[in-house]
Amino acid sequence: MIQTPYLLFLGDAPDGLAAKVAQGIKDWRPENAVGQFRMEGCKADLGLTDMTLTEAKAAGAKTLVIGVANRGGVISAAWKKVLVAALEEGFDLASGLHNLLCDEPDLAAVAEACGRQLHDVRVPSVEYPIANGVKRTGKRCLAVGTDCSVGKMYTALAMDAEMRERGMKSTFRPTGQTGILITGDGVPLDAVVADFMAGSIEWLTPDNDPDHWDMIEGQGSLFHVSYSGVTMALVHGGQPDALILCHEPTREHMRGLSGYQLPSLERLRDLALVLAQVANSDCKVVGISVNTQHMAEDRALDYLAEVETRMGLPATDPYRFGAGKLVDAFAAV
Amino acid sequence: MIQTPYLLFLGDAPDGLAAKVAQGIKDWRPENAVGQFRMEGCKADLGLTDMTLTEAKAAGAKTLVIGVANRGGVISAAWKKVLVAALEEGFDLASGLHNLLCDEPDLAAVAEACGRQLHDVRVPSVEYPIANGVKRTGKRCLAVGTDCSVGKMYTALAMDAEMRERGMKSTFRPTGQTGILITGDGVPLDAVVADFMAGSIEWLTPDNDPDHWDMIEGQGSLFHVSYSGVTMALVHGGQPDALILCHEPTREHMRGLSGYQLPSLERLRDLALVLAQVANSDCKVVGISVNTQHMAEDRALDYLAEVETRMGLPATDPYRFGAGKLVDAFAAV
Repeated sequence: MIQTPYLLFLGDAPDGLAAKVAQGIKDWRPENAVGQFRMEGCKADLGLTDMTLTEAKAAGAKTLVIGVANRGGVISAAWKKVLVAALEEGFDLASGLHNLLCDEPDLAAVAEACGRQLHDVRVPSVEYPIANGVKRTGKRCLAVGTDCSVGKMYTALAMDAEMRERGMKSTFRPTGQTGILITGDGVPLDAVVADFMAGSIEWLTPDNDPDHWDMIEGQGSLFHVSYSGVTMALVHGGQPDALILCHEPTREHMRGLSGYQLPSLERLRDLALVLAQVANSDCKVVGISVNTQHMAEDRALDYLAEVETRMGLPATDPYRFGAGKLVDAFAAV
Repeated sequence: MIQTPYLLFLGDAPDGLAAKVAQGIKDWRPENAVGQFRMEGCKADLGLTDMTLTEAKAAGAKTLVIGVANRGGVISAAWKKVLVAALEEGFDLASGLHNLLCDEPDLAAVAEACGRQLHDVRVPSVEYPIANGVKRTGKRCLAVGTDCSVGKMYTALAMDAEMRERGMKSTFRPTGQTGILITGDGVPLDAVVADFMAGSIEWLTPDNDPDHWDMIEGQGSLFHVSYSGVTMALVHGGQPDALILCHEPTREHMRGLSGYQLPSLERLRDLALVLAQVANSDCKVVGISVNTQHMAEDRALDYLAEVETRMGLPATDPYRFGAGKLVDAFAAV
C-alpha cells in the first residue's frame, strides 16, 4: 500500500486539467493531501499550500505523488531533479504515468540506495481473463462522456458518496490512475493489453448483492478517436444497468483533437444505449451529469433546466449541486 | 525475418476454426506450407500432407509455425514436447500466441543450446503513438463483422489480390498474428496496450497516394463483448473510407458467447457507419462479404442474391466466388 499523507507534485502542468490526478486526490481524500509542489511555469493550482520538499516532510508527508498527466507520459529531466531530491529527502514516489518510475535507472538506483519505494499504479498487477459476457448479479452504473475529462470519475465518486450516506450498498470501481491512488485498488485500464480490457472490467465488478451498485469509473469517450476502444471495453465489460451521460458545455472541440466537434447529448445517448444493450438488454440511460465549472451559477442552473426538459432526464452537476438527483433515478432501474 | 518454408503445427485443435492461423498461411502463401503436424485428438485438417518432424525437415521446412490459437493462448505440456523436439531437429519456432515462446524457460534454453530462433509475432516491436485523428491521404477499407472469425481477413486479402491483379494500388495491412505471419509485418493489435490501439492503426496506415487503398485486416466485432474495444480502435484509428460488412449465416451464437445472438447485417451497417463517420464523415458501406463455407453452392448463391436485394449493396463470398464485385464497388468511393 502507498503510505499517506501525500505531497502532490504538479510539475510544470500546462493547465488545470493536466493536474486532474492531484485535483482528484485533493477533492476526494483531502486528509491525504498535505500540500502541493509546483515548478516554474506550472499553470495548475489546487489551492493547497505550496511547499518545498523539506517543508512537506516536516508537515508529515510520506509520499510524493505525481499528480500531473502528460500526453504519452514522459518523465522530463526537469521533473527528475525534483524526484531524485524527494527520494533523498525520504519520500516514496507514486505515479500513474505510462513512463514508469521503476523503468528509470537513476530513480530506481536512488530509491534503492535510500530504501524508498516506487509505486507505479498504472502497471496491471493481475492477469486478467478474456471477458466471457456472462450476466452478473448486482447492479452496475457507468458514466459515459461526450468527451474525455468531462467529469465521469467525479460523477461516480459523488454518486458513490451520496449512496453510502443514504445507507445504500455502493462501491466505487476505479479504472484509472487517479481513482486507484484514491482508493488503493482498481484496474489501470488504459495500460491493459487490448484483448483483456473487457475481461479486466468483468473482474473488477464481480457478482454482488442484488441491491449493490458498482459505480464504475468511465474512461475516454465513444466519440474520442484516440481512446474510444477503451470506452467500448467499459460498456461491454461493465454490463451497466444504468448509464449517466456526462458533458462539459463550454468545450470547443474534443480534447486534444482540434478538428473534432463534441457530439450532442442526444447522439451520445443513442449510441451508448445501443452499445450497452448488446451486453445488457435492460440497460437504461438514467440521468445527465454536467460539469459546470466554467459557468456562473445562474447560467449553470438555466443550462441544467434546459437539458432536463430537452432530454426528459434528471440533470445536475453532482460536484457543485449534489448527486442526490442522479441517485434518486436509480429507483427506476 | 522468419525463415520459410514452414511446417504448420495444428496441435490438438478442437475444430477447424481454431487452426485459422495455419489455414490462412496455407490459403494465401501455399508455397510456404510444406506440410502439417497434427497431434492425437486434432480435429483440424488443412488437407496438407501429415508429416513427422524428420519428414518435414527432409522436405525443406525451416520453421515450425504454431498454426492453432487457444483462448488465452496457453502452451500446454503436450505441445511443448513437440516444440522441444522441433528445436532439437533444427527448426526455428514462430508463434502468435499470447503466451510467448521466449517466456518459456525450457524453450528458450533449448533454442539457445541448438542455435535456433523463437519468433513471437504477437509482441509489438514498435512504440506506437497515441492517435491524433488527423485526416490522412489515400483510401482505406475496413472489414467489420457480425461476429469474430467470419472472414474479415480473407475478405481483405482477396480484395487486395484482386486489386493488384487489376493494376490498382493496394496494400494488405495485417493486424493479427496470421496476417503478420503471411506478410512479415503489421500490428499485433490485440497485444497492444489499450491507450495506443488507435494510434497503432494510424501508424500502420500512413499518408499514401490518393488512389492507393490500404486493406486493413479487421479484428473482433463491435457486437462481441470480449473484443469490441479492439474493433472500435480499428474503426477510429483506421479512418476507413469504405466498410465491408462480413457475415457467416450459419453461426448459431456469437463465437464463445453462448448467450449472445449475432446481429443482423442491418444492425451492423447502422452501428458501424455511425461510429466510422465520427472519424471520417465521408465513410460509406460499400459491400457485403458472406462466408458461405458451410452452405451448398445453390444455397449460397440464393442467400447472396437475397442479401443484395434486401441491403441494396453488392454481396459475394470473395473466397469462393471472387472479390471482383466488392472491388468494383470502390469506384463509388
